[in-house]
Amino acid sequence: MKKLLQDYKAGKASLSAVLQKLKTLPYEDLEFAKIDTHREIRKGFPETIFCPGKTIPQISQILKKLPKDQNTLLTKANKNVYASVKKLFPDAQYNESAKTIIIQRYKPKKKNGTILVLTAGTSDIPVAEEAVVTAELMGNKVEKVYDVGVAGVHRLFDIKDKIFHANVIIVIAGMEGALASIVGGLASKPVIAVPTSVGYGASFQGIAPLLTMLNCCAEGVVVVNIDNGFGAGYFASLINR
Amino acid sequence: MKKLLQDYKAGKASLSAVLQKLKTLPYEDLEFAKIDTHREIRKGFPETIFCPGKTIPQISQILKKLPKDQNTLLTKANKNVYASVKKLFPDAQYNESAKTIIIQRYKPKKKNGTILVLTAGTSDIPVAEEAVVTAELMGNKVEKVYDVGVAGVHRLFDIKDKIFHANVIIVIAGMEGALASIVGGLASKPVIAVPTSVGYGASFQGIAPLLTMLNCCAEGVVVVNIDNGFGAGYFASLINR
Amino acid sequence: MKKLLQDYKAGKASLSAVLQKLKTLPYEDLEFAKIDTHREIRKGFPETIFCPGKTIPQISQILKKLPKDQNTLLTKANKNVYASVKKLFPDAQYNESAKTIIIQRYKPKKKNGTILVLTAGTSDIPVAEEAVVTAELMGNKVEKVYDVGVAGVHRLFDIKDKIFHANVIIVIAGMEGALASIVGGLASKPVIAVPTSVGYGASFQGIAPLLTMLNCCAEGVVVVNIDNGFGAGYFASLINR
Amino acid sequence: MKKLLQDYKAGKASLSAVLQKLKTLPYEDLEFAKIDTHREIRKGFPETIFCPGKTIPQISQILKKLPKDQNTLLTKANKNVYASVKKLFPDAQYNESAKTIIIQRYKPKKKNGTILVLTAGTSDIPVAEEAVVTAELMGNKVEKVYDVGVAGVHRLFDIKDKIFHANVIIVIAGMEGALASIVGGLASKPVIAVPTSVGYGASFQGIAPLLTMLNCCAEGVVVVNIDNGFGAGYFASLINR
Amino acid sequence: MKKLLQDYKAGKASLSAVLQKLKTLPYEDLEFAKIDTHREIRKGFPETIFCPGKTIPQISQILKKLPKDQNTLLTKANKNVYASVKKLFPDAQYNESAKTIIIQRYKPKKKNGTILVLTAGTSDIPVAEEAVVTAELMGNKVEKVYDVGVAGVHRLFDIKDKIFHANVIIVIAGMEGALASIVGGLASKPVIAVPTSVGYGASFQGIAPLLTMLNCCAEGVVVVNIDNGFGAGYFASLINR
Amino acid sequence: MKKLLQDYKAGKASLSAVLQKLKTLPYEDLEFAKIDTHREIRKGFPETIFCPGKTIPQISQILKKLPKDQNTLLTKANKNVYASVKKLFPDAQYNESAKTIIIQRYKPKKKNGTILVLTAGTSDIPVAEEAVVTAELMGNKVEKVYDVGVAGVHRLFDIKDKIFHANVIIVIAGMEGALASIVGGLASKPVIAVPTSVGYGASFQGIAPLLTMLNCCAEGVVVVNIDNGFGAGYFASLINR
Amino acid sequence: MKKLLQDYKAGKASLSAVLQKLKTLPYEDLEFAKIDTHREIRKGFPETIFCPGKTIPQISQILKKLPKDQNTLLTKANKNVYASVKKLFPDAQYNESAKTIIIQRYKPKKKNGTILVLTAGTSDIPVAEEAVVTAELMGNKVEKVYDVGVAGVHRLFDIKDKIFHANVIIVIAGMEGALASIVGGLASKPVIAVPTSVGYGASFQGIAPLLTMLNCCAEGVVVVNIDNGFGAGYFASLINR
Amino acid sequence: MKKLLQDYKAGKASLSAVLQKLKTLPYEDLEFAKIDTHREIRKGFPETIFCPGKTIPQISQILKKLPKDQNTLLTKANKNVYASVKKLFPDAQYNESAKTIIIQRYKPKKKNGTILVLTAGTSDIPVAEEAVVTAELMGNKVEKVYDVGVAGVHRLFDIKDKIFHANVIIVIAGMEGALASIVGGLASKPVIAVPTSVGYGASFQGIAPLLTMLNCCAEGVVVVNIDNGFGAGYFASLINR
Repeated sequence: MKKLLQDYKAGKASLSAVLQKLKTLPYEDLEFAKIDTHREIRKGFPETIFCPGKTIPQISQILKKLPKDQNTLLTKANKNVYASVKKLFPDAQYNESAKTIIIQRYKPKKKNGTILVLTAGTSDIPVAEEAVVTAELMGNKVEKVYDVGVAGVHRLFDIKDKIFHANVIIVIAGMEGALASIVGGLASKPVIAVPTSVGYGASFQGIAPLLTMLNCCAEGVVVVNIDNGFGAGYFASLINR
Repeated sequence: MKKLLQDYKAGKASLSAVLQKLKTLPYEDLEFAKIDTHREIRKGFPETIFCPGKTIPQISQILKKLPKDQNTLLTKANKNVYASVKKLFPDAQYNESAKTIIIQRYKPKKKNGTILVLTAGTSDIPVAEEAVVTAELMGNKVEKVYDVGVAGVHRLFDIKDKIFHANVIIVIAGMEGALASIVGGLASKPVIAVPTSVGYGASFQGIAPLLTMLNCCAEGVVVVNIDNGFGAGYFASLINR
Repeated sequence: MKKLLQDYKAGKASLSAVLQKLKTLPYEDLEFAKIDTHREIRKGFPETIFCPGKTIPQISQILKKLPKDQNTLLTKANKNVYASVKKLFPDAQYNESAKTIIIQRYKPKKKNGTILVLTAGTSDIPVAEEAVVTAELMGNKVEKVYDVGVAGVHRLFDIKDKIFHANVIIVIAGMEGALASIVGGLASKPVIAVPTSVGYGASFQGIAPLLTMLNCCAEGVVVVNIDNGFGAGYFASLINR
Repeated sequence: MKKLLQDYKAGKASLSAVLQKLKTLPYEDLEFAKIDTHREIRKGFPETIFCPGKTIPQISQILKKLPKDQNTLLTKANKNVYASVKKLFPDAQYNESAKTIIIQRYKPKKKNGTILVLTAGTSDIPVAEEAVVTAELMGNKVEKVYDVGVAGVHRLFDIKDKIFHANVIIVIAGMEGALASIVGGLASKPVIAVPTSVGYGASFQGIAPLLTMLNCCAEGVVVVNIDNGFGAGYFASLINR
Repeated sequence: MKKLLQDYKAGKASLSAVLQKLKTLPYEDLEFAKIDTHREIRKGFPETIFCPGKTIPQISQILKKLPKDQNTLLTKANKNVYASVKKLFPDAQYNESAKTIIIQRYKPKKKNGTILVLTAGTSDIPVAEEAVVTAELMGNKVEKVYDVGVAGVHRLFDIKDKIFHANVIIVIAGMEGALASIVGGLASKPVIAVPTSVGYGASFQGIAPLLTMLNCCAEGVVVVNIDNGFGAGYFASLINR
Repeated sequence: MKKLLQDYKAGKASLSAVLQKLKTLPYEDLEFAKIDTHREIRKGFPETIFCPGKTIPQISQILKKLPKDQNTLLTKANKNVYASVKKLFPDAQYNESAKTIIIQRYKPKKKNGTILVLTAGTSDIPVAEEAVVTAELMGNKVEKVYDVGVAGVHRLFDIKDKIFHANVIIVIAGMEGALASIVGGLASKPVIAVPTSVGYGASFQGIAPLLTMLNCCAEGVVVVNIDNGFGAGYFASLINR
Repeated sequence: MKKLLQDYKAGKASLSAVLQKLKTLPYEDLEFAKIDTHREIRKGFPETIFCPGKTIPQISQILKKLPKDQNTLLTKANKNVYASVKKLFPDAQYNESAKTIIIQRYKPKKKNGTILVLTAGTSDIPVAEEAVVTAELMGNKVEKVYDVGVAGVHRLFDIKDKIFHANVIIVIAGMEGALASIVGGLASKPVIAVPTSVGYGASFQGIAPLLTMLNCCAEGVVVVNIDNGFGAGYFASLINR
Repeated sequence: MKKLLQDYKAGKASLSAVLQKLKTLPYEDLEFAKIDTHREIRKGFPETIFCPGKTIPQISQILKKLPKDQNTLLTKANKNVYASVKKLFPDAQYNESAKTIIIQRYKPKKKNGTILVLTAGTSDIPVAEEAVVTAELMGNKVEKVYDVGVAGVHRLFDIKDKIFHANVIIVIAGMEGALASIVGGLASKPVIAVPTSVGYGASFQGIAPLLTMLNCCAEGVVVVNIDNGFGAGYFASLINR
């Protein structure tokens, strides 16, 4: 844009030509502004590819076009995706439980606050791991405590110190999802609740914990989509900054 | 039936007539057997009339036909119903919060065990009162503690003794209904969970706490219909015997 | 805690140190109290592992950490789980229909009352078997009668004696789930209704019988989650005590 | 059409004119055929106006245009509608429970078979009355037995003779709607099940009994819309013929 | 029962013994009555086994216990079921589209009226075939016209004669299910509508046509469960008698 | 922007100042472009205010700020809204059935094609009138035929010429909404289907016709929101141009 | 029909015979009229076969009966279907992403306007391709831009020219489907929104974007069924004419 | 606790008595700890009373018991509630749009960051005002921009500076709720999305925007319950600290 204006002043471009160009430029500008914003965010934030519904060739093509100096995160990636990514990037790391692939090009700047990731059960771990991988790749210190569901509430009291010291808490629960309420009632820090599709019968693939969490009568609890560990990790990182 | 057989033996009734009569008798028999069973149950159990959908004349007619020596309970009764019942039975007692009317003719035999009735919030009290009225009319000792929802979980710990000493626990909660899970995790006695239509938005008139309670990961928790305080009080009495 | 106080009195611990320790102790205490409660319950109650969503290595690790002298129940366990459990515990017993594995270390104390388990159809048997296995492992006498659905109501009358003599009744039904209503109308004992995902079309994987059972107009009927045979068996045992 | 062809043969109409006319005639023909069919049906069948959503002037205009020699039925009509209809037709009869208005101009031909109308509860009576009014206006002998729900199944056995002798049975039930299943299991005649919006909580304005009835495991049961007493009465009359 | 009474009169049985026996007899009586009714129905009606959820050994055992002189129908039977049935009954006939197996032991008495079975599309044929097999096995003359959906309504008019002459019409449709409405609007005979799970997206496995059919504004249309061809065929036969 | 560049060339503005200004300008530009587009559209298109949820003072304030030379349409406006609008604009016209208010300042340019508006029933008329008012205010010739539902399909054939000659067809139906399918099967022109909340029971306030219309197996049918007559009229006008 | 009339005039056919024939002819006439309409539509429109639920032999038989000189489109066709079609028509073209097969016999007449097909994400491409294939086979110029979802709204501004110049816009989006709203807010041309089943958790196989699109607050947006690329392409072609 | 230990050391209390007391003490301790935490939170946080379902006497009693030196917030309070509160606290302030009552006893400490509150439409303002009142009472600087829905996306670009400078953004939208997605795509700060029950038809009292927001494909967006302005304001304040 600067050059365009200088050309115009220098008489190398007519007024109408400059006006015409400026009319479309803003969009590129907006794009660049967006990219700038992105770049700022990216200090500690990876590019993210949600794999389901994309073919392996599509994923490979996207990966090839990404800037070489940034971190990349692939979510909900199965083993076949990993095999093909590994051919392109031999140092890609696969977390089989989380179904994430990381292509790491630099170490993110570390933040001070801790993000505490809790799960109600063992079966919720894959979603938790997705949140953990995401948050760590964005430079957060993450502490994780799994299987502290309300059926044995004493397990939760054993970790009361972690709850009081964490800066942000992610609560991941399927079945009835009541863990979010009890943690929300104990904690004074923001709680991000993630319903999971773990359960059977009337859990309806995560509708039951989703409704539980949305109706949480404890203040300071927000909700993301069912099984959306990535979204919880990302948001936790945003507010942990 | 006994008389019928004696008549038959005495020649007062023909074989075919007796056969014909026996063919239909069983139903009356079944009915009587049923009534016997009922009578047994009724030691401490009132006749119950669910008022919505019935006209006031219909309710009056039903009441007039009921045996005069038994207790009667009307549920979900509004003030108009009460006004008309009071004309027939001046000693009828109205619980405005529970929307119950009691016509009491005898004192039920007292049971030993205590039924503990908990609510998550103040707005759940009408449903709780319906359970309390029902259980008391059936001869149970009832202890009630209201507004101990998980948003302030310490309130629950203040009543831990009541939880440990109760014989049956009724947990009544709207919104996300997580109280049932936390009580179910603490108690070793049977818990009857009652979802209420208290809440707004994604509580969907009680669907959210209903699903929470059905998916409760703590053992020993069963569920009745939304706002069904009567059903919970009745069942609690059955198992408190 | 006792030793701590004695140390303090003996001057081996300072007041502030004791105060500090007591501040955190309660949680361990709570935990122990919980364990005590558990122990009490466990007279006849197995540790339970819900298998879906857990990897086989996770299940193995959990099993290795459990106390050696108690009974263990695994639910919704497929054949692969059983194969791996059998390697660790060669005496583990698999109920293929119920999809339960039992590792039995002692005989539970027998209770007097009988739990009657009814199914509407043949396809409901796996859920029923889960309830039966659970209840028997908790020391209950269980009687089971399968395939007495309301389409042929006379089958139900053949077992009227069992209905009248049982202490608790578990009714398991898919499709429209009306068996719970008819049994609830006949019986004077508590009825635990289990909707199953058996059916097709508008049964919606168990929503139809779930709603039927929740709206049951007969008194004395409570409901557990769809296909939750374990929960029904457990609750039945609680109230059969 | 006959005249048209004769005109054509007589040379009074050109080939192209006849062809043009015939191209549109079928629709009038179809219409007339339809009307003929209608006339045939109407031997015993009233014109029916579903009132909700229609303004009182609209209802009056429709009534004025109807043939004067036929019977007319208005359904779901409130008192205001009746007041305005009465001004036009002073002999109009209002059934306040059924919310039907009848303007009767002739006696329908009586059929031989009996239609039995059963309700589970007292609150289902308005829907039942709509079915009764409809069926009677179509010439059917109707027997009605109300409040025989499954909570007291012995009441049903008292009327076993009516069930065995009826030609068609209409079963009307709200709440969990199990009456349709039990009647379907007893009867060998066609059963038309009508779910009603009677109930509360998880009956969801009639969804619960609707699903119950659709999943009915007894053969010979079909379903109409929630609260559709008219539809049930009409269909019963069709198959009672 | 007759013998029991004669024994009693002859002094071979005491009054109390007879009373005791009569108390239980009714149930057997009811059962026999039921069986009698059944027998009457069975003139032209097969025993029916709904296969899903039953193991192959269970199906075989049921088949072995059935009376040898009656017809048997198995529905929703896959090829494996058929293979095992064929070993027991080499003359068993499999309809691969309908997924029905017939073991025919006698020819049902033919009825006069015709049942017309219509489908909206080609994909609805399996459900239609189940209805056809059922109705034919019950002695009905069945005429079938497939793929006459409303997208090309002229196809429907080609078969107007069949619609006018049929005694009962079964309309089978997935997607939006509008065929039931248009046939209901044309026909003066009873219409049984069967929604199918054919479709995608917002057809929600048959909910869309189910709702369409329940709300059908044409009179004389009733509905059975999604994909329930058997139920439609059975009911059609009941009212074709 | 032109002036800015001229100032810059003339040295009245520095390069950095111009760059800064251009960075924000595009948004105003976009806005103006948007407004231009709007203006173009407005040749024949009214400003529209959806009234529900707005207070009467809010509606008045919005109306006062609108350009004086354009047409304005208020939708879902009750009588109170109309009374207050009439005070501001005495020539405002209220359509009580459609619940629309029009403040007309110029005559829209007439289009050639005809939009045909059909309703299945009398109760659908308010939604239809909203579509008619909208389309007419946008300069369309509108033909309306009400109450041609599929229950009496011959009524539809009487208007076959209108169907063939219309340029766009709007089909408005509640209950089961099958009219859209039958018209879609007959017409070769675009059909816009509007489900209405007319009906009862399983029509679920318009879900039934919404699903019917979305699953319409006839090609050339699109759908708008339940009761959205305005949207249908607007879209019809867009494609009638 | 012409010949019939001439025969009649010539005395070769009696009046009653002609009347009889004309009574049924209309339907054939209607059919022919329909076919004429079809023929007119088919200038640029292929016969379409929706494959799911049809067996491969059924598809082959349908294909063999179709007129040889027209274009044919098969949708939702898997590779097995293609293999069998290829044997019959070696020039059949398969679009693996769209799952469409084309048998092209003539080039459709080209239209002037452009249809713009946008997708929110990469995973929506199969549905988009189905729309593209359909619209192109009907003679439309189609421009496609994929992966311009609102998460990076600047991508959308890059294509503003395409949005302003297109004659019709198809917006295809899963997850939350907000792209339809933003395009609807920018464009002044008709927008056809297609929700897709792309997403997870609370997208519920396309319900989330479906509801988003139906409630779109921007005017000029209509909706088709979930994943219905064909329907969108067809309707776009209808209004692009 | 300190005194208890000193008494014990001094011999004033036996070991068993102290042990007994300590067993229950922790709960009071926990309670006090909880209260401490509360006190800490309360620096800037009001006590909150959710009014629906509470009777006016109940609200008055709660208010009387609250500490006199703290701020109090009542939400969803109608005019009757306000009238009764005003009698107790004449300085109570009512926000009629937000339906909030504030009883303010001290000025909260101001925070630096700004919370930006956006609404899609005018009808969403009541929910927004609830968020604003809550956040301001907790010491936040709040900027509000209403009616910037995506139907006129240029309005959003006018406020791009506010979006870039805010520390937290609350997006409140009914109908299809797409505003959350577009803001989420533009902003790099945390976005809290609040679906509202504004809309009609297929918005289903807020389900449509709720699903939209949960499925938001832009990162950094979390969701609270439908119409839960309070929850959004509270959470925004938590992360603005």
